[in-house]
Amino acid sequence: MGELSRATGVPVPTIKFYLREGLLPAGELTSPNQARYGEEHARRLHLIRALTDVGGLPLASVAKVVEAVEDRERPVHKLLGAAAGTLVPTYAPDPDPANSERARALVEELIARRGWQVHADDPAAVALTAAAASVLAVGLGDYLDSLDEFAASAERVAAADLSFVARGEGPEDMVERVVVGTVLGEAMLGALRRLAQVDASARLYPQSAADPDAAESSSG
Amino acid sequence: MGELSRATGVPVPTIKFYLREGLLPAGELTSPNQARYGEEHARRLHLIRALTDVGGLPLASVAKVVEAVEDRERPVHKLLGAAAGTLVPTYAPDPDPANSERARALVEELIARRGWQVHADDPAAVALTAAAASVLAVGLGDYLDSLDEFAASAERVAAADLSFVARGEGPEDMVERVVVGTVLGEAMLGALRRLAQVDASARLYPQSAADPDAAESSSG
Repeated sequence: MGELSRATGVPVPTIKFYLREGLLPAGELTSPNQARYGEEHARRLHLIRALTDVGGLPLASVAKVVEAVEDRERPVHKLLGAAAGTLVPTYAPDPDPANSERARALVEELIARRGWQVHADDPAAVALTAAAASVLAVGLGDYLDSLDEFAASAERVAAADLSFVARGEGPEDMVERVVVGTVLGEAMLGALRRLAQVDASARLYPQSAADPDAAESSSG
Repeated sequence: MGELSRATGVPVPTIKFYLREGLLPAGELTSPNQARYGEEHARRLHLIRALTDVGGLPLASVAKVVEAVEDRERPVHKLLGAAAGTLVPTYAPDPDPANSERARALVEELIARRGWQVHADDPAAVALTAAAASVLAVGLGDYLDSLDEFAASAERVAAADLSFVARGEGPEDMVERVVVGTVLGEAMLGALRRLAQVDASARLYPQSAADPDAAESSSG
């Protein structure tokens, strides 16, 4: 167990806790108080740390993901879906039913236009509908004209995400990649969007960006 | 004031609070206890509600944004940057300096490759570096091979964002669009990415998606 701790950087008391909680399978007993831990234990520890440290998941959710990983009869598509599902942020629906209905129609039309094989009641479709309803509620529905452009961009990102996950070796690795890709990918995409906005803004309003002092004095 | 409240849906006591806090300019006095409120007050109220309700900003941050909006000498590029800056999530840097250094180099190379007119110490560049360092820390550096693909996708999104903001009439409207686009846009993009992943996963692992029961029994 000391070796496993050194190899993974997870302290021994934490490993013992994961064993007691059933998140980590017991090692193979080699003597009454000696057990052997292998590659599968190291992989599982990496997954648990990714779920807790990167995903910020509570232990109950970690247990559910681990259970899904251990269910070898579960098809890969469903396993990955279950893992990603624990990480989808919920978004409060807009209280005005008119906005929600219009948003739902827009989302359903978008899914049909893109030819996406997804259910209209997928949690992500529900989250998209709630966010779109909020855009309508603040009276800025013209923002939703960008939905197709956003969807096209999401398809490129998703293709890169999937090939990253497919490079994982076995269910633990693949699920760890889903978690890292979802959480850290989201952080990277948000930051990249902001950087691209700064660049686009500098090009759209070149005077102020190229020479801020001159621009400030010229307008004062 | 009652009329302003009806037109905007903001309760009178809340309007009085914003007046006391200096977030809303005083109305034009028409008699000792009667004031006229116009379009500019309605626009400002919309902005404040967007910052608090959509952006989830504390009042101190709202005050800073309002101050920036009122500074007519500030170039548009800088005003939009200040508004977006209040919404950039901070991300804890990875404690391992080797990961941080490698991540910083990757981000600087990316910015140079894309030809982005941004500073390397822009908060978004710092956030991107922190997230990339975390990816390296969990040993999944191959995910960073997708950075260029993600950046290309971010450029398309940013172009749509900027044209949405440019349709705003005056600083209040434009800043409100920055807030709504940043916060609700992020929620929509996250949900779209997830939907595109579900679709891509269904195509990559078609057996399980097309006929889950058959797949489950065939692997059991």
